[in-house]
Amino acid sequence: MATSLRSIKSLAPLLDRILVQRIKADVKTASGIFLPESTVEKLSEAKVLAVGPGGFDKEGKRLEISVKPGDRVLIPQYGGSPVKVGEDEYHLFRDHELLAKINE
Amino acid sequence: MATSLRSIKSLAPLLDRILVQRIKADVKTASGIFLPESTVEKLSEAKVLAVGPGGFDKEGKRLEISVKPGDRVLIPQYGGSPVKVGEDEYHLFRDHELLAKINE
Amino acid sequence: MATSLRSIKSLAPLLDRILVQRIKADVKTASGIFLPESTVEKLSEAKVLAVGPGGFDKEGKRLEISVKPGDRVLIPQYGGSPVKVGEDEYHLFRDHELLAKINE
Amino acid sequence: MATSLRSIKSLAPLLDRILVQRIKADVKTASGIFLPESTVEKLSEAKVLAVGPGGFDKEGKRLEISVKPGDRVLIPQYGGSPVKVGEDEYHLFRDHELLAKINE
Amino acid sequence: MATSLRSIKSLAPLLDRILVQRIKADVKTASGIFLPESTVEKLSEAKVLAVGPGGFDKEGKRLEISVKPGDRVLIPQYGGSPVKVGEDEYHLFRDHELLAKINE
Amino acid sequence: MATSLRSIKSLAPLLDRILVQRIKADVKTASGIFLPESTVEKLSEAKVLAVGPGGFDKEGKRLEISVKPGDRVLIPQYGGSPVKVGEDEYHLFRDHELLAKINE
Amino acid sequence: MATSLRSIKSLAPLLDRILVQRIKADVKTASGIFLPESTVEKLSEAKVLAVGPGGFDKEGKRLEISVKPGDRVLIPQYGGSPVKVGEDEYHLFRDHELLAKINE
Repeated sequence: MATSLRSIKSLAPLLDRILVQRIKADVKTASGIFLPESTVEKLSEAKVLAVGPGGFDKEGKRLEISVKPGDRVLIPQYGGSPVKVGEDEYHLFRDHELLAKINE
Repeated sequence: MATSLRSIKSLAPLLDRILVQRIKADVKTASGIFLPESTVEKLSEAKVLAVGPGGFDKEGKRLEISVKPGDRVLIPQYGGSPVKVGEDEYHLFRDHELLAKINE
Repeated sequence: MATSLRSIKSLAPLLDRILVQRIKADVKTASGIFLPESTVEKLSEAKVLAVGPGGFDKEGKRLEISVKPGDRVLIPQYGGSPVKVGEDEYHLFRDHELLAKINE
Repeated sequence: MATSLRSIKSLAPLLDRILVQRIKADVKTASGIFLPESTVEKLSEAKVLAVGPGGFDKEGKRLEISVKPGDRVLIPQYGGSPVKVGEDEYHLFRDHELLAKINE
Repeated sequence: MATSLRSIKSLAPLLDRILVQRIKADVKTASGIFLPESTVEKLSEAKVLAVGPGGFDKEGKRLEISVKPGDRVLIPQYGGSPVKVGEDEYHLFRDHELLAKINE
Repeated sequence: MATSLRSIKSLAPLLDRILVQRIKADVKTASGIFLPESTVEKLSEAKVLAVGPGGFDKEGKRLEISVKPGDRVLIPQYGGSPVKVGEDEYHLFRDHELLAKINE
Repeated sequence: MATSLRSIKSLAPLLDRILVQRIKADVKTASGIFLPESTVEKLSEAKVLAVGPGGFDKEGKRLEISVKPGDRVLIPQYGGSPVKVGEDEYHLFRDHELLAKINE
């Protein structure tokens, strides 16, 4: 989805949504040779850039969000809403769609 | 959806519905040349014009709406109900369908 | 749906149902020329004729209806149950299906 | 659905079910001429013959039924369970499927 | 579904399930002539043989069952789980699937 | 589903799951003649081998399981997860999928 | 799903998710002969490597997770999200998707 945003930093996710940026696979082999991008598998890892205030439970209270900006997370293969700022692509997921936190 | 409305201002969304107007992409390049509209990508940004009083939770209490008139928001690629007033098109979304607030 | 009703006024919607009549587009141009009806776009506006007592929340209490007889409302493009009284057509919607109130 | 019932009066609907009999359209014109039945449109009106004790809400309490025996109601075009007693056909609807009460 | 049961009486339905046996249509006309079984319409009536202890509401309390052994009931045209004991066929329905009680 | 289990006894069902073993139909006629297995109808009866601790209701309390190890039960024709231990096949059902207890 | 993870240990499942590694079937017969891997059936057994903090019930409280790291579990034939770390494949399941614990 195209936007006219100057910076992704101006995006504040709503409810239980999480803004992430996919981590790109290394296009350089261990021995320093650069690979053509089409031969590199897309990673299911992403960095959390911003999180919403949380969705509501059945009694109208906000549910705690599982991750925070700066976290590295495992994202599902499908789903999420793509957002484009200039040439960069980002994704918005709902909190419960994220699979795991990466502590590395 | 065609209407006989004279002004979009007379529309008061019901429950958790949000009335927005899509922001048009610039049809002028940086150097001042005008582009034909068909070559300009549609933006996923919209301005909030009016918000409903909020939907009900399971106990009959109103749920807080996430945005307010004047807010700029990221809208999903699909969905929403189109409304036409004269030549202008607007959309009604439900609060939880909006993806993010834009602070720019 | 055909009925043998003499007057639409004898119809009392049940639960959260709303009885409306679609507002017809003007078949006369600004300069007073009448247009053939087939060239006139159907409007998504309707007048509320009667409202039900409200549906139940999960605890068995009635939920407040968002509109009242006499209100003008924006109705969705699809859905609703058609009712025919003589040559006139009316529609029954559920309260949450109505999109907005028109204050004009 | 065929039954061996001698009288529809022996049928007591369960939970939120409503037993109705469709009202037949007049096969006689205003001037007294009888029309062949196939040219007469089926009406969406029915008479309530019996009602169930009510379904349960999430806390196990019975929900009030919206209509009572003798009421005339507007029924939806599709749905309902047909019941046949001799040559007569009846229908069972759930309470929330009925559209409106007819006060005429 | 085939079983090795000697008697249907050993079957105790679980939760909100109801064990019924369909009532067979008379294969003898009023004047005493026997009809071939294939020309006789299947009835939607059944006798309740046994009922379960009731399902649970959202708070873990048992919901009351609407019928009791010995009741005659109207069953839906489709659905239910067939059970075969010797040559006889029975059906298990959930309580809310039964349409009406027959008091005749 | 293949497993490397030495004994089915080492399987402890989770939540509301029930481990059962289908009861085999007699392949010997009343007069003592053995029938080829392919001519014998599969039975819908099973023996309960182990039960889970129970699922959770909406308030986080465990729901009581309807059966106990040793019970004979009627199982649905379809569904359940097959488990293979050596040459023997077992099934896991959820508590509410079991149809009836067999007291014989 | 490809990742750039150096170790699966850095993965911390979110909410009610469970990280498991499928147990490989023995490719050696009892008499010590190695079988080609394609002739060996895939096992439905897995070892729990890490568990999430638990999902939320309708009142916003965490639900207890049924298994703990080190447990051996029976996993369903289909479903789960695959994760690849180097050449090794792992799966993420939701707690209620796991079928049974293996005590052997």
